[in-house]
Amino acid sequence: MAKIYLFPVPMGDTPVNHVLPQLNIELVAGVKHFVVENIRSARRFLKACDRSIDIDSLSFVELNEHTPAEAVDAMLVPALEGHDIGVISEAGCPAVADPGADLVAVAQRKGIEVVPLVGPSSIIMSLMASGFNGQSFAFCGYLPIDDARRTQALKEMERRIRRERQTQIFIETPYRNRRLIDDLCRRLPGDMLLCVASDISGPRQSIVTRRLSEWKKASCDYDKIPTIFLLYS
Amino acid sequence: MAKIYLFPVPMGDTPVNHVLPQLNIELVAGVKHFVVENIRSARRFLKACDRSIDIDSLSFVELNEHTPAEAVDAMLVPALEGHDIGVISEAGCPAVADPGADLVAVAQRKGIEVVPLVGPSSIIMSLMASGFNGQSFAFCGYLPIDDARRTQALKEMERRIRRERQTQIFIETPYRNRRLIDDLCRRLPGDMLLCVASDISGPRQSIVTRRLSEWKKASCDYDKIPTIFLLYS
Repeated sequence: MAKIYLFPVPMGDTPVNHVLPQLNIELVAGVKHFVVENIRSARRFLKACDRSIDIDSLSFVELNEHTPAEAVDAMLVPALEGHDIGVISEAGCPAVADPGADLVAVAQRKGIEVVPLVGPSSIIMSLMASGFNGQSFAFCGYLPIDDARRTQALKEMERRIRRERQTQIFIETPYRNRRLIDDLCRRLPGDMLLCVASDISGPRQSIVTRRLSEWKKASCDYDKIPTIFLLYS
Repeated sequence: MAKIYLFPVPMGDTPVNHVLPQLNIELVAGVKHFVVENIRSARRFLKACDRSIDIDSLSFVELNEHTPAEAVDAMLVPALEGHDIGVISEAGCPAVADPGADLVAVAQRKGIEVVPLVGPSSIIMSLMASGFNGQSFAFCGYLPIDDARRTQALKEMERRIRRERQTQIFIETPYRNRRLIDDLCRRLPGDMLLCVASDISGPRQSIVTRRLSEWKKASCDYDKIPTIFLLYS
């Protein structure tokens, strides 16, 4: 029975063997049909895994925010015909926060086996290095931009940290990182802990936990660096 | 400046190169001071990484549920003296849901660099393969055992799934897996989706998403197999 393999991809320019197990590289070399977020970067990833892969003999279908929902079913045809399918996203773990999840949902409905492989996850890696509670945590994606809704979202996060001891994790568009830190310092109590984790697994990796009262005074430059934020107390 | 490396460990008997990148194996071979959840399994892990490691030349300190909180500070002394420290837990990613997090919290307070490495996370891998929302999800640990509190916890999960589209993830003691599935079928609406992910990265791996109305009729055997549960609609 054919399988859907979910292949994580290094974040940034990190070498493949720094963040992916050997098993992934062996498996990816055996797959002929790929569903990818972006064909160019998927080809680059495959070449980085194994230079001997004959890229031109492979089939690629793009699945991204431009793909109509009704096109997803047809992408699974190779699996129904007995061929494994590999899913490759732009960076990190596929099918977590990208359209690959739609494909997996359809595969599950059709009873096709889905095999997740190990790779870099900024959510788990930042949580490990934060020192915060990992028995209970939530990833919330982006904070709302609208002022009133953002205030409400932060109030709810504060409540879940205090009452449920639940670590709150979220992201921001890289060029707004410093603005977000200032915003958190202004809107939340100074004794709350903020972990700022940037360029995870990359050459400029920095994962720092401090009280908001300390972040307020700290000089730091996260401009344009992919960064993830964790709150706890 | 010395660093604290967080080394993930395979879950079950999975070979090291199936779930850990080469970088981890190179780094672990250079570390002389370890803080571990269990010395015997840490030694076994190190031997599996690299048979040439001279285990008897290494220092090990145990950090687990029996360790008094005031003993944690002293474990960081090697780092303050310039020696890297490796943290190794029983299985999966250290410092997420184990006492390693206390050590990391102290290291962060002292300004020691903490380096998380890539490895298997049942939370992220099950989420990838579930087809559920990965833009918003919560890991809640164990459900309450007390009947009234369990009802309340499930009501709150249902609310967060419906209102926030937040995937809810939790675990159970392996011998109670089937009982938990029956319990979810009884207490929650039949149209809700449950993903049951067991033996992740192991030889009996099974990750299946179905409606609760289907789980009710399904025969399945997850007895004594480490399993993680995800709810969504």
